[in-house]
Amino acid sequence: MTKGNINVSVENIFPLIKKFLYSDHEIFLRELISNATDATLKLKHLSNIGEAKSELGNIEIEVKVDKENKKIHLIDHGVGMTSEEVEKYINQVAFSGAEEFLEIYKDTAKDSGIIGHFGLGFYSAFMVAKEVEILTKSFKEDSTAVRWVCDGSPEFTLEDYPEKTTRGTEIILHIADDSTEFLEDYRIEELLTKYNKFMPVPIKFGTKTETLPLPEDAADDAKAETVEVDNIINNPNPAWTKNPSELSDEDYKNFYHELYPTQFEEPLFNIHLNVDYPFNLTGILFFPKLANNLNIEKDKIQLYQNQVYVTDEVKGIVPDFLMLLRGVIDSPDIPLNVSRSYLQADGAVKKISSYITKKVGDKMVSLFNEDRAGYEKKWNDIKIVIEYGMISEDKFYEKSDKFALYPTTDGKYFLWDELIEKIKDSHTDKNGRTVLLYATDADAQDSYIQKAKEKGYEVLLLDSPITPHLIQKLETSKDNISFARVDADHLNKLIEKDEPTISKLNDEDKERLKIEVEKNLENNTYVVQVEDLDSSDAPFLITQPEFMRRMKDMQATGGGGGMFGMGNMPEMYNLVINSNSSLADKILHLEDADKQKTLVQQAFNLAKLSQNLLKGKDLTAFIESSYSNLSS
Amino acid sequence: MTKGNINVSVENIFPLIKKFLYSDHEIFLRELISNATDATLKLKHLSNIGEAKSELGNIEIEVKVDKENKKIHLIDHGVGMTSEEVEKYINQVAFSGAEEFLEIYKDTAKDSGIIGHFGLGFYSAFMVAKEVEILTKSFKEDSTAVRWVCDGSPEFTLEDYPEKTTRGTEIILHIADDSTEFLEDYRIEELLTKYNKFMPVPIKFGTKTETLPLPEDAADDAKAETVEVDNIINNPNPAWTKNPSELSDEDYKNFYHELYPTQFEEPLFNIHLNVDYPFNLTGILFFPKLANNLNIEKDKIQLYQNQVYVTDEVKGIVPDFLMLLRGVIDSPDIPLNVSRSYLQADGAVKKISSYITKKVGDKMVSLFNEDRAGYEKKWNDIKIVIEYGMISEDKFYEKSDKFALYPTTDGKYFLWDELIEKIKDSHTDKNGRTVLLYATDADAQDSYIQKAKEKGYEVLLLDSPITPHLIQKLETSKDNISFARVDADHLNKLIEKDEPTISKLNDEDKERLKIEVEKNLENNTYVVQVEDLDSSDAPFLITQPEFMRRMKDMQATGGGGGMFGMGNMPEMYNLVINSNSSLADKILHLEDADKQKTLVQQAFNLAKLSQNLLKGKDLTAFIESSYSNLSS
Repeated sequence: MTKGNINVSVENIFPLIKKFLYSDHEIFLRELISNATDATLKLKHLSNIGEAKSELGNIEIEVKVDKENKKIHLIDHGVGMTSEEVEKYINQVAFSGAEEFLEIYKDTAKDSGIIGHFGLGFYSAFMVAKEVEILTKSFKEDSTAVRWVCDGSPEFTLEDYPEKTTRGTEIILHIADDSTEFLEDYRIEELLTKYNKFMPVPIKFGTKTETLPLPEDAADDAKAETVEVDNIINNPNPAWTKNPSELSDEDYKNFYHELYPTQFEEPLFNIHLNVDYPFNLTGILFFPKLANNLNIEKDKIQLYQNQVYVTDEVKGIVPDFLMLLRGVIDSPDIPLNVSRSYLQADGAVKKISSYITKKVGDKMVSLFNEDRAGYEKKWNDIKIVIEYGMISEDKFYEKSDKFALYPTTDGKYFLWDELIEKIKDSHTDKNGRTVLLYATDADAQDSYIQKAKEKGYEVLLLDSPITPHLIQKLETSKDNISFARVDADHLNKLIEKDEPTISKLNDEDKERLKIEVEKNLENNTYVVQVEDLDSSDAPFLITQPEFMRRMKDMQATGGGGGMFGMGNMPEMYNLVINSNSSLADKILHLEDADKQKTLVQQAFNLAKLSQNLLKGKDLTAFIESSYSNLSS
Repeated sequence: MTKGNINVSVENIFPLIKKFLYSDHEIFLRELISNATDATLKLKHLSNIGEAKSELGNIEIEVKVDKENKKIHLIDHGVGMTSEEVEKYINQVAFSGAEEFLEIYKDTAKDSGIIGHFGLGFYSAFMVAKEVEILTKSFKEDSTAVRWVCDGSPEFTLEDYPEKTTRGTEIILHIADDSTEFLEDYRIEELLTKYNKFMPVPIKFGTKTETLPLPEDAADDAKAETVEVDNIINNPNPAWTKNPSELSDEDYKNFYHELYPTQFEEPLFNIHLNVDYPFNLTGILFFPKLANNLNIEKDKIQLYQNQVYVTDEVKGIVPDFLMLLRGVIDSPDIPLNVSRSYLQADGAVKKISSYITKKVGDKMVSLFNEDRAGYEKKWNDIKIVIEYGMISEDKFYEKSDKFALYPTTDGKYFLWDELIEKIKDSHTDKNGRTVLLYATDADAQDSYIQKAKEKGYEVLLLDSPITPHLIQKLETSKDNISFARVDADHLNKLIEKDEPTISKLNDEDKERLKIEVEKNLENNTYVVQVEDLDSSDAPFLITQPEFMRRMKDMQATGGGGGMFGMGNMPEMYNLVINSNSSLADKILHLEDADKQKTLVQQAFNLAKLSQNLLKGKDLTAFIESSYSNLSS
């Protein structure tokens, strides 16, 4: 039996690392700036604990583009490297100096913010450069600077470089011909803004002109002076890294606009996340104004790792229902693959997701309790998130009785228990079931809503696209209640009471009325029913049975009942004729067949109008004949 | 100056390869079966060219799950490996045997279908296994089998293993405790079906029961016999690998259902892709029935690499407008990163995308030319793709005059040139501009459509969600035409002719009419205009100016004009009063102020009805008063 060691051949793996490990070439800048940041943070840490003696001085990281000579320079003033350290950290791929540093200084360096992890980042330089130079001088006393050069083959040269006299590292990328896009200033600024906007060490890229404020005693015609100042790309201390107690509402709003410079609207409120056990996570989530729009996608939640932008694909980390929010999440503990752009499937991620869900639930409770009126005003813009959470996350649903609102068409807002308390007497039917009437469109269902209100009922306005799913959820979890849309049947049927009905017509007349109406409405698919309603109720009424309509609605928003082919089923409507209306009487007693037909059809048209069902040619004919009636 | 070689340390990189290289652990099965397939295809190739002497025999790959002992076995009957080959291919990470094979046999092996590329796939086994065994015997005569074992550290053992007497390789995975999900049969079958469904070597997973057909002379009460047969997971010769001339319509449909087993509807037609220069690509795209649904996303186009499933995220490879299609694309030339799940940004991808676009355009031309009637019938289901392509791909747009249809509300279909030929006399205004009238909703705009038809105009039905963008594109690229929705103004204004207008009212009366109407319609935001229309035209008419409406429509479908805040602007409507209508005359001469007010409001309500603008309380009141008119 032979024993041996698996061998990773540099000739084979080096080209892979260079070309394929990172899916996106632009990543090189983020990786190199992360290294420069780590070098700087290490120095700060060593200085703090007294191991670095010299002055910190300027610690800015500088990026310079030399388009003419096709070079990019990245200059830091961090720890630098000795010749031995270059051998160790650069010449050995996948040996992470950051990991080693954290290991050596584990007692003190835990919160130093050091980013490096895999030790591969540096090599991403070869995705865009045909040759890479490193000029570096260690912070250690009496160290000599060195110069390392590699043209992308596994061969390098290393020599003393006494010309460099300042502490820190300068990386010079000799940009390859297929990557000259990165020699454009605007492109580099774009990348710095995308990936490094909130990194913890100041990053300088060129200069900008600033206008000095005029002195208070300046003459009226005094001209403001301008000066050239360093153009610092980043905000090293973004809001989410601070303690919530240090931040005002204004600070949160400013941060929102810093994060989404093209957003003009203010966020409704924010949730500051801050946890360090069992995982580290900070961040700020914002509720934007959503109304009923499920499809907003532009300004997404951004994921950071120690203030380095990673991605805005946070699916898996943030529960689905919160993907509509905006903001940042920063965690060193979110497991990403080497290129950091892809989330690893991992149990820890589930914990993060449920922490965020809980935190959002808690925030809702406190927002509601602290300022109910303000919360009610925001409801229309946040309900889609809350309702989506209620149907998709059980823990969130369980807590929702404390913050989920049920608005009425009159603009009142109830918690669930308040609502049931308010309506249980009037809305409970003869079988003891409390029927909640709702409308999905206050305009379209107005005539039905008015009728219900006349009879003293409350009508909820549940107009979000996921209403059918929410209703389903409530019906299966609350006892002895059911929902019915206000046009699902006549009110006497929706909430059946133990009251006798009175009819002006006998059974024979009712049967004849049904036949007369059906006869005059050839080829229609409505089911005609004669009912004993109040004489003040509409003579004709179109209703749409609850169950079928709800199934169709659920299918329209995806999933739900999942009954195959339901989407293609025709709508089902009933035509209810009020036996106690004077119109019914008139129809029954009209001798002239033509006149009777016209009357039935006109009444039918009006019933269709109240359900927005009179359309096309029928509507055109209705309008034309109505105009001619007006003109005569 | 020192020269040296960069060193990739196995201790450091091996854990990264094992844990982080692949974003998804389930990939291990795909990678190992790809290796087994390569081993089998290599043997077939060597046998074809006479370098392998023994009989091919059974070449099935077998997958077995041994749940009790927590093991998965993958058995192939391919080339196998000698002890030296194990040293070379297994013990050296990132040394791809497939690449080497293709290099050695480059003259003959080009089309052998060999998959391996990076030489990393095998190590994905350690994502799910705590120990991996290889039992392998080379096809070479007199070779001895060997056994290789590694527990995931870089250390391995290798020994002779004469117990294995059959050619080929068996991989045994000792599944780790955190990966026991892969010991479930259903899970393995799921993965085989997802990744290996069309791989070129038969894959056996367990057995299944099959019913034998009864002999023709069987007695009526004869019982069908059942037998246990191998359960072969894959179809090694999927339709896209065949020549289009071998395939019937039926074959394409069968393949569609093979690809999407839960799809019951038939595809409308297919496009067979087949190119080998400047890149290799085969595939079949299907047009599903889309109607106006932009949001279908379930059954997406699948991307394969040599019959191995890679992903269904084809963004970048397939132009956006074709993402609504279904089918497969197979190409060894699509540059993917090591884990194959992420597309590399690459110039070659653009070429692929424009080839596919061209191919779809060509197919449309031939479909139209071969069977115009059939093509017209399908138009409603394909137009969204075509129109999207026209506005997003210039090359496609340039060709579209040969296949893009413009349907009328009467159900006629014109090509652009046919349409202009047909309408240019009647639709050209006094300034020589041809005005194309269109409706976006035949039902809602019916009264306007009827009026236009009465006057001899053709009205197009352009009802897809991207109509405003298409119109914009046509207006900016075709000469001397413009589009106007049929309700954008009165027809006399939409297509202005050099004809004198006649008015029954003098200017003073017209001014008085305007005042009377405005007086009776307090608090409404409509702009009242008195116009000299035909006496047979509607007395009141609501119009919605083209430009503003179109901008709003464009915003609703995202982008377009991009004018900030447009989305929040109120709708703008005009109320046109027909000075030549008898109703105008009646309004002018009614002395009773109350009656005049009622009349104006009723006429206004009717005008609103024809634009679906009478809603809520106003509609309810309108219906109630109409009912009481009927009943009296």
